[in-house]
Amino acid sequence: MATPDIIFYSAKGSPFSQRVEIAFQEAKADITKYSIDLRDKPEWYASRVNSTGMLPVVVYGSPRSDPEHPSPESAKIAESHILLEFIADLYLDSGLLPKDPVERARVRLFIDAAVTKLTAPTSAFFHGGSPDGFIAALMEIQELLPPTANFAVGDHFTIADAAIAPFLARWELRLRNDVGKFEEGTGLRVYEELFQSERFARLQKYYASISNRESFKNSFDPEYILAMDTGRLGRH
Amino acid sequence: MATPDIIFYSAKGSPFSQRVEIAFQEAKADITKYSIDLRDKPEWYASRVNSTGMLPVVVYGSPRSDPEHPSPESAKIAESHILLEFIADLYLDSGLLPKDPVERARVRLFIDAAVTKLTAPTSAFFHGGSPDGFIAALMEIQELLPPTANFAVGDHFTIADAAIAPFLARWELRLRNDVGKFEEGTGLRVYEELFQSERFARLQKYYASISNRESFKNSFDPEYILAMDTGRLGRH
Repeated sequence: MATPDIIFYSAKGSPFSQRVEIAFQEAKADITKYSIDLRDKPEWYASRVNSTGMLPVVVYGSPRSDPEHPSPESAKIAESHILLEFIADLYLDSGLLPKDPVERARVRLFIDAAVTKLTAPTSAFFHGGSPDGFIAALMEIQELLPPTANFAVGDHFTIADAAIAPFLARWELRLRNDVGKFEEGTGLRVYEELFQSERFARLQKYYASISNRESFKNSFDPEYILAMDTGRLGRH
Repeated sequence: MATPDIIFYSAKGSPFSQRVEIAFQEAKADITKYSIDLRDKPEWYASRVNSTGMLPVVVYGSPRSDPEHPSPESAKIAESHILLEFIADLYLDSGLLPKDPVERARVRLFIDAAVTKLTAPTSAFFHGGSPDGFIAALMEIQELLPPTANFAVGDHFTIADAAIAPFLARWELRLRNDVGKFEEGTGLRVYEELFQSERFARLQKYYASISNRESFKNSFDPEYILAMDTGRLGRH
């Protein structure tokens, strides 16, 4: 059976798009990637791809077509966490989701925990609030990591790793460059605590495992992201 | 291979627990159900089952054991939406998730949409706010339903139906009995619009399909739930 054509509409610099790109790369998928600059979104995107205008989207199942004119009959799937499951379903042998039901549940619990624990305190901190909630939430994430394995759920890279890597990487980058709506030096201080102190050694080892992955490096453009975040949040 | 022992800890009257119970019944799973009254939660629950105290939880993989003393080695899985996926993974032939990756994504998008669109406006309305947001959100859900098929994603019952059924049923019950922190008669008026008017005919047909299901009827105790909701929200 020929694999149906896959077009991946990716927002430049977006962590949600990077999740999906990492998963496609890990699956060694043959896809067409179409990058969109959010500051200059093409007019046809909402009418032909996703009426909400949101990215990322995967268009699946049409005959091979020009990304600017995807087939109206093709399936158009949005939401990065649903796309991670979709890619794991399409490429069953990628190991992006383990075969064992309990392990699969652990992958999903990790993704869920990362979102529910981290979203609010991270946003509060980078917009000028206290770092305490952000640091405490990352401690909770560290405690979810297995003591010795390389990845979030065991020794195989899964969609749990694809889901969190883009966010950890952006925070590391911002802190190391003191980018955020906080007092000068706060970012560097939190960087030391999270990325250099013994207390977070387990998280640092995990971050090294995922950020050294080819799929991660190929989908991460630190200069572009730093410029974007500096514009939004400011730099000291 | 013998199926490992499954203990399902269910909170009496909880829609999240009912989701899981419906899925187990649809899968014809052989499980031990242990009901917990949230107003009188046993002391051992947090120490032996789930330290957060939350329900529902499924304990999986231990040798058959007394629910009050589950094996410490067993897997303990929480979060109803993750349990729905877990049950679909355990009982692959149940059809609780379709085999086709695009259909699987549609099931997950439906569950996601139901939560993100309905949670806030429903809570606002039943706590005394305007019904407009609640009615508009249910219109959006109606528009996601396929025009003629019986269930949320086609003609087979899936975890999308298990996920939304307990909530639709509680709202129908409350409105029909005018239960909520709103002016007298508001519940009945909204009931007429949603459950009797032509405008919502598609939603009404869908609600009939899911609420007539044996798995639903066996897991829904309207008297108990109405008494609980009346105590919390008041009745006119």
